[in-house]
Amino acid sequence: MNTLGKNIRLTSYGESHGEVIGAVLDGFPAGFTVDKSFIQYQLDRRKPGQSSISTPRTENDEVIINSGVFEGKTTGAPIHFQIKNTNQNPKDYMHLKDVYRPSHADYTYEARYGVRDYRGGGRSSARVTSGWVAAGSLVQDLLAKEKGICVGAYVKQIGTIKLINEPLYYSPDIVESNMVRCPDTKVAIEMIDAIQQAKADKDSLGGVIECVIKGVPAGLGNPVFDKLSSALAHAMMSINAVKGFEIGGGFEMSSMRGSEVNDAFYIENGKPITDTNNSGGIQGGISNGMNIVFRVAFKPTATIGVAQQTITNSGEEISLEATGRHDPCVVPRAVPIIETLAALVLGDFLL
Amino acid sequence: MNTLGKNIRLTSYGESHGEVIGAVLDGFPAGFTVDKSFIQYQLDRRKPGQSSISTPRTENDEVIINSGVFEGKTTGAPIHFQIKNTNQNPKDYMHLKDVYRPSHADYTYEARYGVRDYRGGGRSSARVTSGWVAAGSLVQDLLAKEKGICVGAYVKQIGTIKLINEPLYYSPDIVESNMVRCPDTKVAIEMIDAIQQAKADKDSLGGVIECVIKGVPAGLGNPVFDKLSSALAHAMMSINAVKGFEIGGGFEMSSMRGSEVNDAFYIENGKPITDTNNSGGIQGGISNGMNIVFRVAFKPTATIGVAQQTITNSGEEISLEATGRHDPCVVPRAVPIIETLAALVLGDFLL
Amino acid sequence: MNTLGKNIRLTSYGESHGEVIGAVLDGFPAGFTVDKSFIQYQLDRRKPGQSSISTPRTENDEVIINSGVFEGKTTGAPIHFQIKNTNQNPKDYMHLKDVYRPSHADYTYEARYGVRDYRGGGRSSARVTSGWVAAGSLVQDLLAKEKGICVGAYVKQIGTIKLINEPLYYSPDIVESNMVRCPDTKVAIEMIDAIQQAKADKDSLGGVIECVIKGVPAGLGNPVFDKLSSALAHAMMSINAVKGFEIGGGFEMSSMRGSEVNDAFYIENGKPITDTNNSGGIQGGISNGMNIVFRVAFKPTATIGVAQQTITNSGEEISLEATGRHDPCVVPRAVPIIETLAALVLGDFLL
Amino acid sequence: MNTLGKNIRLTSYGESHGEVIGAVLDGFPAGFTVDKSFIQYQLDRRKPGQSSISTPRTENDEVIINSGVFEGKTTGAPIHFQIKNTNQNPKDYMHLKDVYRPSHADYTYEARYGVRDYRGGGRSSARVTSGWVAAGSLVQDLLAKEKGICVGAYVKQIGTIKLINEPLYYSPDIVESNMVRCPDTKVAIEMIDAIQQAKADKDSLGGVIECVIKGVPAGLGNPVFDKLSSALAHAMMSINAVKGFEIGGGFEMSSMRGSEVNDAFYIENGKPITDTNNSGGIQGGISNGMNIVFRVAFKPTATIGVAQQTITNSGEEISLEATGRHDPCVVPRAVPIIETLAALVLGDFLL
Repeated sequence: MNTLGKNIRLTSYGESHGEVIGAVLDGFPAGFTVDKSFIQYQLDRRKPGQSSISTPRTENDEVIINSGVFEGKTTGAPIHFQIKNTNQNPKDYMHLKDVYRPSHADYTYEARYGVRDYRGGGRSSARVTSGWVAAGSLVQDLLAKEKGICVGAYVKQIGTIKLINEPLYYSPDIVESNMVRCPDTKVAIEMIDAIQQAKADKDSLGGVIECVIKGVPAGLGNPVFDKLSSALAHAMMSINAVKGFEIGGGFEMSSMRGSEVNDAFYIENGKPITDTNNSGGIQGGISNGMNIVFRVAFKPTATIGVAQQTITNSGEEISLEATGRHDPCVVPRAVPIIETLAALVLGDFLL
Repeated sequence: MNTLGKNIRLTSYGESHGEVIGAVLDGFPAGFTVDKSFIQYQLDRRKPGQSSISTPRTENDEVIINSGVFEGKTTGAPIHFQIKNTNQNPKDYMHLKDVYRPSHADYTYEARYGVRDYRGGGRSSARVTSGWVAAGSLVQDLLAKEKGICVGAYVKQIGTIKLINEPLYYSPDIVESNMVRCPDTKVAIEMIDAIQQAKADKDSLGGVIECVIKGVPAGLGNPVFDKLSSALAHAMMSINAVKGFEIGGGFEMSSMRGSEVNDAFYIENGKPITDTNNSGGIQGGISNGMNIVFRVAFKPTATIGVAQQTITNSGEEISLEATGRHDPCVVPRAVPIIETLAALVLGDFLL
Repeated sequence: MNTLGKNIRLTSYGESHGEVIGAVLDGFPAGFTVDKSFIQYQLDRRKPGQSSISTPRTENDEVIINSGVFEGKTTGAPIHFQIKNTNQNPKDYMHLKDVYRPSHADYTYEARYGVRDYRGGGRSSARVTSGWVAAGSLVQDLLAKEKGICVGAYVKQIGTIKLINEPLYYSPDIVESNMVRCPDTKVAIEMIDAIQQAKADKDSLGGVIECVIKGVPAGLGNPVFDKLSSALAHAMMSINAVKGFEIGGGFEMSSMRGSEVNDAFYIENGKPITDTNNSGGIQGGISNGMNIVFRVAFKPTATIGVAQQTITNSGEEISLEATGRHDPCVVPRAVPIIETLAALVLGDFLL
Repeated sequence: MNTLGKNIRLTSYGESHGEVIGAVLDGFPAGFTVDKSFIQYQLDRRKPGQSSISTPRTENDEVIINSGVFEGKTTGAPIHFQIKNTNQNPKDYMHLKDVYRPSHADYTYEARYGVRDYRGGGRSSARVTSGWVAAGSLVQDLLAKEKGICVGAYVKQIGTIKLINEPLYYSPDIVESNMVRCPDTKVAIEMIDAIQQAKADKDSLGGVIECVIKGVPAGLGNPVFDKLSSALAHAMMSINAVKGFEIGGGFEMSSMRGSEVNDAFYIENGKPITDTNNSGGIQGGISNGMNIVFRVAFKPTATIGVAQQTITNSGEEISLEATGRHDPCVVPRAVPIIETLAALVLGDFLL
């Protein structure tokens, strides 16, 4: 339920306005030197309040690691990550206590569990992904340092503004060169404008993140039901507001012919490679040694300031306007979530 | 690896040109009367050679059930389904023994396992889905008869021909009224033409299947990592040639604003409903009682008669033309696969 | 690896002399009022330093619950339990840094992980069971209050002193009436004497705990590989120093004839019951409605003050005498561990 | 439910008097040459009717392997084993249709599933272990040939006749030198006599099997909940009629002192070894490189010819005498079950 993975297992806990957010990472190899600065770097990219296009809620998202590490190295024991919620404002949510916000999980959590922690979405909040990022960034760091596998995500689309490019691995400094995390500066400016316009309109935008992973060896994946592509889809669909996943050529290939999209094999330096990569680095559910390429679609943030029709849990129909802090577009902050979940999935097959 | 689900578990075995294809279904409730005719109906919709737009390989796909059923009823013991391969032609594949076919799983299976059953793709063939369909259709039948849940899939797109419609549950007779399984007869004819043209060109087409499930109660799904949407994505990405998955408004919502796509709540007959269904019946990973709606993108069949560049496993670069029987478009035959896998996923949460 | 259970899942973390011990309990039903006093009661029964026959290490074992509970009730979200280690004395263990203590897990952890947290056994210490007890006692409390299922364990044997009785459910006050947790006062005194003698001799004792569970309905267990008996054995063998498990008549039945041990069925109040209970409440891996009865064998504590032959990790042969605080017999403190693990196992099948 | 293992997974199906017994083995390494004669050898040791002290039911237990093997070698795909039941006699069981046999699983299966396949115990019959033996013997063969790990079980006790020995690995020819599978000929004769006497008395006997595994490297096991000892206990408790499990010194150690049973470490040929092996080769749940030693307790066969008190499913109290073929002692036939399950467990950690 709250555990992802088989060999490398992430168990998540915590709520938006509870005391803590946490994660237990089990199965991580022993003997790896923990670089807390990289973990904190990824947490900082995810945390609220980091830029003018993000939510104004401020959280330090400072991570504590208090088990599974001894004398600076992992021991093979489960690693516990904990982040204190410093900006708990349960009172801000009292007026939402009985309201089912449109396109949120308020109603479904109540249908599922009978009760609901209404403070900022409780368990259904994207805030809980901070624990995933903490744990996943440790795996991402190991993949980079010990396996030469680099996971790089970036914003491909915000609202109607799209980056037209070949899927590439971009270095972190390029992605980080602007606050929307799009590797093309010109497109980034348009995206930022779009977000600011939505914000001014008390509205919200969605977008698409593309993730490219280089250095993955051929042979990862366990058909027929633990395909690498299935595991990636599963993990990505766990992220709040994600409504679509595609790999390589994705949905676009459905309009094309086999002769147009088949990836011809060649030999380069004695190794099989393909000239195109419409397969997105995965064939038959197993990596083929090319870059792994996938895209994740985010719907616009559900919380908006525009008035909306909705109901209460006693069946009353009301009009709702969100007030105060909300995030006009979560997509830029989701980049490290995609990267670290992808690292967890790869680690699960590789480590 | 070859098992799907936690409470209702499908374990799959068999190869394209092995003696048998099989599946074990574990956790299925006791006391349900097995309707073999419905299982056979779904197998017949999936089987090769069923129409002029399908592969000419002919298989009866007759299913044997030889455990877990006693006096016509399930007993709670694992149910074993077995289908004999009657049309095994291993010799047809001798010339492909050493060849990595483009956009097939030949190379990746060899990278993963060191060896490869080269007969028609071996374990990587879509033929193995016959076992899934057999097991899944039993679950689909139970959902319909005992829970009032109807799973209906249909072809939404073949190549560039798209059905423009609101996602609807169509009854089987409408979907089955033409061989391409598109509920709109006019569009169906265009789709069939497109497939026949591709066939004449020795080429292939992909497409999109839409699946609509009605009658699902609110409250199914186990966040944060066993969301109903994650489980559906996982299962669908297990199907051969699938490269994309989206739920409700999907990728299209990424271009829109929150105010445009949020699903307003109303009360109808004392029950919360939404006016639109961009959430696709799932919010926060849990069903909300509306129709579940998702789409699955198929790339064009990898096997084509057009000459293609590729390599052998000894590193030789060669040109390859598929000869004989291949399927210009697998999408119509995939409709029952989508339905039965969706039933397995729902059953896993519900039963 | 560090997770037990499928539907009710306990994930454990922490080390003997790390900052914290913790556990995440996932799948626990929503809406249950958390009684921290019962959890603390069980933790107190397990904690070191509680009586003169226990280790002198003192720990408060005060539990913090900081997620999954809202307004005093469980929410269905994962519940996080955390216990601070207040008595960390890593320096006490510096001299054992390179030593493999006999019949401890020092050598095997190093063989498994390459590194080892040598402070008091690190992850291999029985200290980590405090997290299990915290989580399991919540399940035990729910079983008692909502299902009428009472889990009661007691000490059956310490060293050569054995309680000769029919397996019975004893109420907590009887078991708690003496510090060795044996329901027969006279036998208890002998047991306490035996432990004190072993302590004086710088030696240690093992023993046997019997657990009786009343109120379990017939029909729990999932043959053939998730039998209730298998799950109980698995959980019990996870406890430190446990080397044997038996159910009902156990090993003794191996010397007997079918006619002597078969449990004849009768009808009582319209319900099937058996006259004897050599089956221990489980037949074919499924509960039969009688009391569940099992026994767990503990070897004597490995740490003793008597000089022992052993080696260092550089291959040097040395003589070792444990100094300072060690526990002459852990069996009485293991009673709540048995109870809470048994509750977790039952909950996994029932909830 | 009917699946054992995580990386090497056995899925079992079939019933005592159904058409077939089967098993799917998933995760088995590719490239291993299948030796059907070893598999058949183990099946023959398990099959009914093999000697005068066994049940008179005769079954060939001939195994068919029809997937996962190509050109004589495993491919990494799931391997399917199937055994036809040639001696189905459902009519023999019509009189037991409504009867709950004492200490059988008739009542509990009906409590669990509502329905019951009454033919010879249906799914609860030990007959289904033939599928486990088929799959497990492939793993046992690989462990022996590729890892130098030899799994050897033998009968240690039948009724009150006990073999007094140090746990040793005995070669198959010694164990197989008599029909009771006790490595000491003199004791074997006594055991055979005891079984024949029980048979003459229409009664039954239980016993104990000891299993010794040599060649296991140090470092196998995943604490705290996937300990090697836990996994072995779980698997062994899955076997019909098993009511106890102990490792190394087991229950006997509960009566002893730490100074008597601690295993002192020495260095031999540069490798840590222990002088005694009361730990049974497992410390802290991880193998230490010494022989793994465990014992499994079987209760006497539940089916006896002596008259017994019992009830029907309509609540009638009746007297029951088994007629015809029953097995006075299943223990000798269980030797290959223990070996192959132990191999499956080890393989799950090692492969």
